[in-house]
Amino acid sequence: MERRIRVTIFNEHNQDRSEPVKSVYPDGIHAAIAQAFHGCDDFEVTIATQDMPSHGLPEEVLTATDVLIWWSHIDNAAFDDAVANRICYHVVHRGMGFIALHSSIFSKPWQRMLGIYYDAGPWGRFRTMPKGEKEKVWVINPGHPIAYGLDECIEIPADEMYGEPQLIPEPDQTLFISWWEGGDVCRSGNLFYRGRGKLFQFTPGHETFPILYQKEIHQVLRNAARWMAPSPAMILPTTGAGHLHGDARENLDHRQ
Amino acid sequence: MERRIRVTIFNEHNQDRSEPVKSVYPDGIHAAIAQAFHGCDDFEVTIATQDMPSHGLPEEVLTATDVLIWWSHIDNAAFDDAVANRICYHVVHRGMGFIALHSSIFSKPWQRMLGIYYDAGPWGRFRTMPKGEKEKVWVINPGHPIAYGLDECIEIPADEMYGEPQLIPEPDQTLFISWWEGGDVCRSGNLFYRGRGKLFQFTPGHETFPILYQKEIHQVLRNAARWMAPSPAMILPTTGAGHLHGDARENLDHRQ
Amino acid sequence: MERRIRVTIFNEHNQDRSEPVKSVYPDGIHAAIAQAFHGCDDFEVTIATQDMPSHGLPEEVLTATDVLIWWSHIDNAAFDDAVANRICYHVVHRGMGFIALHSSIFSKPWQRMLGIYYDAGPWGRFRTMPKGEKEKVWVINPGHPIAYGLDECIEIPADEMYGEPQLIPEPDQTLFISWWEGGDVCRSGNLFYRGRGKLFQFTPGHETFPILYQKEIHQVLRNAARWMAPSPAMILPTTGAGHLHGDARENLDHRQ
Amino acid sequence: MERRIRVTIFNEHNQDRSEPVKSVYPDGIHAAIAQAFHGCDDFEVTIATQDMPSHGLPEEVLTATDVLIWWSHIDNAAFDDAVANRICYHVVHRGMGFIALHSSIFSKPWQRMLGIYYDAGPWGRFRTMPKGEKEKVWVINPGHPIAYGLDECIEIPADEMYGEPQLIPEPDQTLFISWWEGGDVCRSGNLFYRGRGKLFQFTPGHETFPILYQKEIHQVLRNAARWMAPSPAMILPTTGAGHLHGDARENLDHRQ
Repeated sequence: MERRIRVTIFNEHNQDRSEPVKSVYPDGIHAAIAQAFHGCDDFEVTIATQDMPSHGLPEEVLTATDVLIWWSHIDNAAFDDAVANRICYHVVHRGMGFIALHSSIFSKPWQRMLGIYYDAGPWGRFRTMPKGEKEKVWVINPGHPIAYGLDECIEIPADEMYGEPQLIPEPDQTLFISWWEGGDVCRSGNLFYRGRGKLFQFTPGHETFPILYQKEIHQVLRNAARWMAPSPAMILPTTGAGHLHGDARENLDHRQ
Repeated sequence: MERRIRVTIFNEHNQDRSEPVKSVYPDGIHAAIAQAFHGCDDFEVTIATQDMPSHGLPEEVLTATDVLIWWSHIDNAAFDDAVANRICYHVVHRGMGFIALHSSIFSKPWQRMLGIYYDAGPWGRFRTMPKGEKEKVWVINPGHPIAYGLDECIEIPADEMYGEPQLIPEPDQTLFISWWEGGDVCRSGNLFYRGRGKLFQFTPGHETFPILYQKEIHQVLRNAARWMAPSPAMILPTTGAGHLHGDARENLDHRQ
Repeated sequence: MERRIRVTIFNEHNQDRSEPVKSVYPDGIHAAIAQAFHGCDDFEVTIATQDMPSHGLPEEVLTATDVLIWWSHIDNAAFDDAVANRICYHVVHRGMGFIALHSSIFSKPWQRMLGIYYDAGPWGRFRTMPKGEKEKVWVINPGHPIAYGLDECIEIPADEMYGEPQLIPEPDQTLFISWWEGGDVCRSGNLFYRGRGKLFQFTPGHETFPILYQKEIHQVLRNAARWMAPSPAMILPTTGAGHLHGDARENLDHRQ
Repeated sequence: MERRIRVTIFNEHNQDRSEPVKSVYPDGIHAAIAQAFHGCDDFEVTIATQDMPSHGLPEEVLTATDVLIWWSHIDNAAFDDAVANRICYHVVHRGMGFIALHSSIFSKPWQRMLGIYYDAGPWGRFRTMPKGEKEKVWVINPGHPIAYGLDECIEIPADEMYGEPQLIPEPDQTLFISWWEGGDVCRSGNLFYRGRGKLFQFTPGHETFPILYQKEIHQVLRNAARWMAPSPAMILPTTGAGHLHGDARENLDHRQ
C-alpha cells in the first residue's frame, strides 16, 4: 500500500480570531484549508498555529511532514528565527514541499528560500484602498499535475488584488496568471526549486473573502500536495565540517 | 561621453594579512582583483575591506557602485546584518551587480539573495585534504558578453576543487562549467537575476593560488562588470507603506 | 564612434495592400515599424518583403543584420524553407536578434527556433468572432533594458486578443503580461535564448488597428533592437565535418 | 491497480546489424535498452525500428505510448517528416515523454521540439579521432526522481566524448554533468518542457561500447520513464480552425 502524504497546515491564526475575519473563517483559516483533504484516504493532516510551542512546528513535526501549507500575514516578524531556519533545512535538504498562500510570501521561511528581501524595498502593486474585486486565475500550463481536474480558469468572485511587478526570481515554472477586474495582472501560481525541495506560491486567499473554501482552490491544494511530496532522494555522505565528502576519484598523488 | 562603470571591490582582507596567503597576495586579494581594471578608461575602482567603518560599504559607497565584486571566506558571520541588507536592497531594487568569487557564496548578501541557506546543511563537494589541482573552466555559452575575448577554455594550473551537487537554484544562465583533475565537475560561472539586479557566481579564486592575477580571470571580471552595470531602470511610484502604488486602471466604483 | 545597429524589417506585405488593412497602414506595415527608428542616429534600417527575391533576405542582407524584426500572418507556408533555415543559422550561430510581432509566431523561423510545432495542434485562445478590445501590457521586469522609458503599463485601445495557454517553452525571461478587456491574460513579451542569439516574442500588433504607430510600441522596438544586437562573440574552430574541433586537452595516448 | 507505463523503444537499427557494433549489441541496441525494464511489473515495452512500416511508430502505437526512448545516428535524414511531426504532436499536445539517447539529438523530432537546428551550423565538441575514454556522469540534482537509487556519480569505462558548448537552450533542469578523461565536460542529462510533454537528453550510449547494458544506465531509464509518463491532463476545447475556443468571459457587447 502506498504511503500517505503527510500535510501540515500552518496558520498564523491571529486575524481570524476576531471580526471581520472571524465571521468568514469561524473555525480558523486552517480549518478551511484542511477541508481540502477531508475524505481523502491518501492524506494525513496536522495543524500548527503560531501560538503553539515552536509555533506547532518542532523538529518531530517537520520530520513527519511531506508538504507544509502556510498562511500568515501580520505576525511574520514574531516568528522564531531558529524554527524558520529548520523549515528551510527540511525543504532544501530533505525535500519537504512548501506552499505559500497569499500574504505568506512575506513570511521568514519563504523570503529566505526565495532570495528576495521584500522588507528591503517595495513589492508588487496593491490598491491603496483595497476592496474585493473579481479575479480570474488562468491555467498557463494545462499539462502540469497541479492543474489536474481544473477548468481553463478559476473564477473568484472577490479577492484582494496582488499586481505586478512582483520582483520575484523568474519562476522555474509558471502555472497560473490572474486577471483582475481593476485592470491588473499577476503571476499567481509559481513554482521554484530550491535544493531538493519544491516551493509553490499561490496568491489567492485574502482573509476577508471565503476563497479558501472554494472547491477549485481545494483541488489545487490537493494536486500540489500530491505532486510536491518529496521523492526518495539520494543520501549524500557528509564530513564532520558540514560539507559533502569529496574524495578524488582520479589519482592526485602527484600533488603534494 | 559614456559614463564610467563604478566598480567596488570588497575583500574580507583577513587571511591575506599572514602566511601562507600573504606571499601569494602581498598587497591583499583586492589588489589582485583591482589589476583587472588597470589602464581601462571606462572603470572607476573603489576598495572596501571588512575592517573599515561599515565594512567600507556605507550607503554613499553603495549608491555610487554599479557592480560590487566580493571576496570573503572565514569572517562571514562577523559581517554586519544591516549592511548586508542594504547590499541586497541595492541589488534587488536599484540593479547593482554582485559578483561572488570562490568562497563568497557563503557570505550573507549572497545567501540572502540566492535563497539557499548553506548553514542549514551540507553544500557541494570538497576534498577532505584539499590540494591544488588542475581546473579547466569551459565556456558553455560562447555568445554571452561575459565570454568575450576568451578562448574555449581557461586553464588554471592549481585551484581548490568545488564540486557538485551545489544545491543552488537552477541558474538563469550557465556560462562556465569546470573540469577537475581529480575527477569532479562544477558549474563555475552562474548567472541569477534578482529583481532589477544581476548576480554572478564565479567559483575560481582560492587564496593560496595566484589565480586572481591570471589574465583570463581579469578578462572575465571586466566583461562581467561591463555587462552587469545597471540599465537606467523604470522608477516605480511607492506608497508610504512600502508598497507600489496600485490604483485601479479600470473602474471599481461598483465595489464598496 | 560606436557602430550603428543594423535593423532589418521583414513584412509579409500582403494583407496591407488591400482594405481593411490598407487604410490603417497605407504605406505598409513595415513603414509603421520603421518609424520607430526615424531620427535615431544609432540605427540603419533595411526593408524586406516576401515578394522580393529571397524574400528580401538573401545571405548578404542577413550577414549585415544585427536584429531582424518580423511581421507575417497568412503566407507563412509560402516562405522558402532554405531562407528560413539561413535565418535560424544567423540567430543561433552568429547571434542575430529576432523579434516576432503578433502572428509572426506562426512563421517558419520562429517555430523552428522556438521548438513548438503550432501546426501540430491547437495554440492559445482566440475569440471565435474577434473584435478589438482594450489591452494593458504590464511591465513585469522593470529593470530590463527592454522596459527602459516605459510607464508601468502600455495601454492599447484595441487589439486582437491572444490568450493562454500558449504552450510555449517557459520563457528565459518574461518581460510583459497583457490584461484583456474580455477577461483573458497573455504573456505578451517573452525572451528566449537560442545558441548565441536572442528571440523576443512581442504579441501586440494586429493589422486592423494602428498599434504599430503607437509611441510606446516604438520605444519597445528601439529598446529591444539595442539590447538584442549581438555581442562580439567567440569564434570557435570547426572541423570539415561541421563539428567543433574537439582535440583532447589531457593525454589520451594510452587509449588505442 | 495502477496502470502500467507504456514504453516504446525506437532504434534506427542500422549500424548494429554489422561489425563492429554487432558484436557489442548482437540483438540490436533496442534489446539492450529493453533489458532496463525486464522483470518490472509496472512497464509494458514495445519495440520500433526504422525499417518497419511507419518506422514502427504508426498513430496507434504513438497513441498507446507514455514514453518514447530513442536511439538513432546515421539515418536521421531518411526518417519520414510526417511521422516526425506526429511524434511532436504527441509530446507537445498529449504529454508523451521523449528520451533522446546519445546521437539522437540529431533526430528530426528532437531538433524540431528543442528548437536548435544543428544542421544549420556546428554543434558541440567531438574528438577528431574519437577513441573511447572514461566518463563520470555526476548527479547535479540529487533530489530529482530521475536520480533515484544512483550513487553520486556513474562511472563509464569508455564512451565517445560529447563536449561543450552544445548551443542547446538553457535546460529547464540540469540533472547530470559529465567529466571526461580527455579534459572536457558536458551537460549530459538535460530536461526540457515542451507544451504538455517532457524531453530528456541523456548523452551516454555510443554504439561501440556496452554502455546501454550498464545497470546504472538502466536505473536512469526506469526512473525517467516513471517520471516522464504524462499526467492526466486538462482537455481544452478547440475550434474547427485548430485554435482553442476563446469566448470572452467578460462582456464585450459594446464593441462592434
